[in-house]
Amino acid sequence: MGRNDSNTGVAIIGCGTVGGAAATLLTRDAATISERLGADLELRHVVDLDFAHARELGLDEKLFRDDLQQALADEGVSVVAELIGGIDTAREIIEQAIRAGKHVVTANKALLAHHGPELMALARERGVCIGFEASCGGGIPIIRALIDGLIANRIDALFGIVNGTCNYILTAMTRQGAGYAETLGEAQKRGLAEADPTLDVAGVDSAHKLAIMAALAFGRRVDFDSIPVEGIDTLHACDVAYGQELGYIIKLLAIAERRSEGLSLRVRPAFISREHPLAWVSGPFNAVSVYAHATGHTMYYGRGAGDMPTGSAVVADMAAVAVGTTTSQFERLKLWPDLTPRAEQLPVESVESRYYLRMMAEDRPGVLAKVAAVLGARDISIRSVLQHEPPEADDGDGVPVVITTHAAAEGDVRRAIAEVDALDVIKAPTVCIAIVDEHPEEL
Amino acid sequence: MGRNDSNTGVAIIGCGTVGGAAATLLTRDAATISERLGADLELRHVVDLDFAHARELGLDEKLFRDDLQQALADEGVSVVAELIGGIDTAREIIEQAIRAGKHVVTANKALLAHHGPELMALARERGVCIGFEASCGGGIPIIRALIDGLIANRIDALFGIVNGTCNYILTAMTRQGAGYAETLGEAQKRGLAEADPTLDVAGVDSAHKLAIMAALAFGRRVDFDSIPVEGIDTLHACDVAYGQELGYIIKLLAIAERRSEGLSLRVRPAFISREHPLAWVSGPFNAVSVYAHATGHTMYYGRGAGDMPTGSAVVADMAAVAVGTTTSQFERLKLWPDLTPRAEQLPVESVESRYYLRMMAEDRPGVLAKVAAVLGARDISIRSVLQHEPPEADDGDGVPVVITTHAAAEGDVRRAIAEVDALDVIKAPTVCIAIVDEHPEEL
Repeated sequence: MGRNDSNTGVAIIGCGTVGGAAATLLTRDAATISERLGADLELRHVVDLDFAHARELGLDEKLFRDDLQQALADEGVSVVAELIGGIDTAREIIEQAIRAGKHVVTANKALLAHHGPELMALARERGVCIGFEASCGGGIPIIRALIDGLIANRIDALFGIVNGTCNYILTAMTRQGAGYAETLGEAQKRGLAEADPTLDVAGVDSAHKLAIMAALAFGRRVDFDSIPVEGIDTLHACDVAYGQELGYIIKLLAIAERRSEGLSLRVRPAFISREHPLAWVSGPFNAVSVYAHATGHTMYYGRGAGDMPTGSAVVADMAAVAVGTTTSQFERLKLWPDLTPRAEQLPVESVESRYYLRMMAEDRPGVLAKVAAVLGARDISIRSVLQHEPPEADDGDGVPVVITTHAAAEGDVRRAIAEVDALDVIKAPTVCIAIVDEHPEEL
Repeated sequence: MGRNDSNTGVAIIGCGTVGGAAATLLTRDAATISERLGADLELRHVVDLDFAHARELGLDEKLFRDDLQQALADEGVSVVAELIGGIDTAREIIEQAIRAGKHVVTANKALLAHHGPELMALARERGVCIGFEASCGGGIPIIRALIDGLIANRIDALFGIVNGTCNYILTAMTRQGAGYAETLGEAQKRGLAEADPTLDVAGVDSAHKLAIMAALAFGRRVDFDSIPVEGIDTLHACDVAYGQELGYIIKLLAIAERRSEGLSLRVRPAFISREHPLAWVSGPFNAVSVYAHATGHTMYYGRGAGDMPTGSAVVADMAAVAVGTTTSQFERLKLWPDLTPRAEQLPVESVESRYYLRMMAEDRPGVLAKVAAVLGARDISIRSVLQHEPPEADDGDGVPVVITTHAAAEGDVRRAIAEVDALDVIKAPTVCIAIVDEHPEEL
């Protein structure tokens, strides 16, 4: 604990984007924070191997350490923030901090998605806690909503736009009609996508956050590897545009739904009605819609990434240790994944949803009848059809026929698509995108 | 405190809409809540004078008491929820509960807006706390965001849509082009407006919530009576429509902004860009946008009223007492209005904003020049003008000339309007509606 009642000593491990911002808040804005908090958060160590960024930020060199043990040995430190990211080294740092009796704060979604339960169990054994508001949704206090504001609810579903890079790219594709590759290039130029954007665009980062949020929302331990994940990297501009014509906006959605048979978790590009609040979330902003049995639909919106938003979530967790709230919640609530049973996670085949299908068909009579027959045989009803006048020159690739279906099981839809694609009138693989309907409120 | 560590006894005073819902959650959904909370919230007393509603809900008659003292004398009760509303009796109940050593939970925004600081001081003196998540935004955990999730921030502004009745009426006026009176009648028929809707439509309810939220956001004690309040009851359908034509949506906004000279608080119908997330908040939904120096813009969206959403906020506060978080926050944070200095509240004249003006002018040459001259003399620049072809039959009321201005001080605008209205070419009082621009983020 801190050296006196109104003082909590903290250490930051990893002075990169988020660590640097947290350190800046703790020093530059110490007076603002103390005034609200009624206590000082004293930054006592900034541990890293390279202090170039720390120096750029003008942090006090007296805080710089290249040896983690110095921070862990300091009895004045009660909270250690792991902000280096990645799995193995980060895990070791957190375990060492816990063993040294320090509370831990982390923004590391990959680590928590894979090893959260073990780390929490260790923390519990040693009487400390782990705060991880910064791991999901940057500056949006979504973890707090799930464990505190909505505590009196049975949570039934959660739809999240939780990757700013993807949302930036999809917003640009929607508004400018641009293609994926060119939009990604633009995002990279503006610093809104990493040089290697794979974790973001392939949906893995969103799945990490989904695993963390769903575990708390449903009070079930989630198996990350069982979450089906599709990214935005195979999307075509034309599907984004056809969707808009039908009243839908494309979003990379992290979805968790409670079903009677278990939990359905998935990450995928999906169409959502332009009337849904998530459809409005544009550019680098993120938002999470939560459907709860008493509260109904609530949504939490903000900057899902970035130095200061995420840094402020780190400092909020430190503050909550200082106030004693995170410690009490970690000790007393029963929804932490080290305490809860394993989720029954449903296979993607069983997801019931409406779908958007784009077929590339020969432009001749009878095509729609053949397609409809295949779908009908699998009990998939057509809800709407969109077929424009064909282009003047037939390039042999077929003409797009867009169908939306009524709700059907994903397995049936996939099998029907395989059959459709085997028809001689179909010239290219059919594109299939889920349409996510507003989750019903129980109120 | 509860009779054992995992059991917190609670009493509900007032079994109306919110009290009945909270009692239902505590009994019908006890298992769900206990599973998440890791503790039981035991409803021990439902105090009221009339149990018709309680019986309709099927609550256990053994809980019914017509004497508050029975609940207060019960040592097994640690939390008392005041849910009768109104000022005098509610205040007395809360004071008695505090004096009996009970923590208090309340949804009573009017009482807190007027007497929050005194009640909090009394609670602090007696070592108990007051939870009031349910007082603002129904099921939206906005109080928690302000005191917990955003604790590491200096909050610079807050824009709220915090009255569901008004938002329902304005949404209908916007979408259907209907008039105020007819839309209000419709809302009353659907149970979305009270028989006497004055507190809602005149903006007073929104001002109550603004006073509570602003005090926490800025860490300043707010004087409710100094908040300028305008309602939606004088709005014309045509202004809603002209605003839309210009790209704006009309909302009743509760606004709090930090200025170098003090705080500007106000409630008024205002135009907001259709690109702003608040513009999308429709029907009975509420939302609060918060602009904070590190987190930037975050928004909290959900059902701002209704039995179950508000009841779930009441139960969340009881749970937070059971976990010990609200008690710690009330004890340790320094932003409660009984502990903070008085706000410098700026007079409405000093508000700088853009404005929409609709003048009813004679349809003859030179009118716009005269109006522009009056505005120019007060340094008010015109940003856009909208004047449609005049109606075929001149009814003598003049034709609407709509002007939007660049930013100007409200006092100057009001004085200019008085001068405009004195012109012989102006046939009716000019309508003036503020245009609220997106608050800049500092990031």
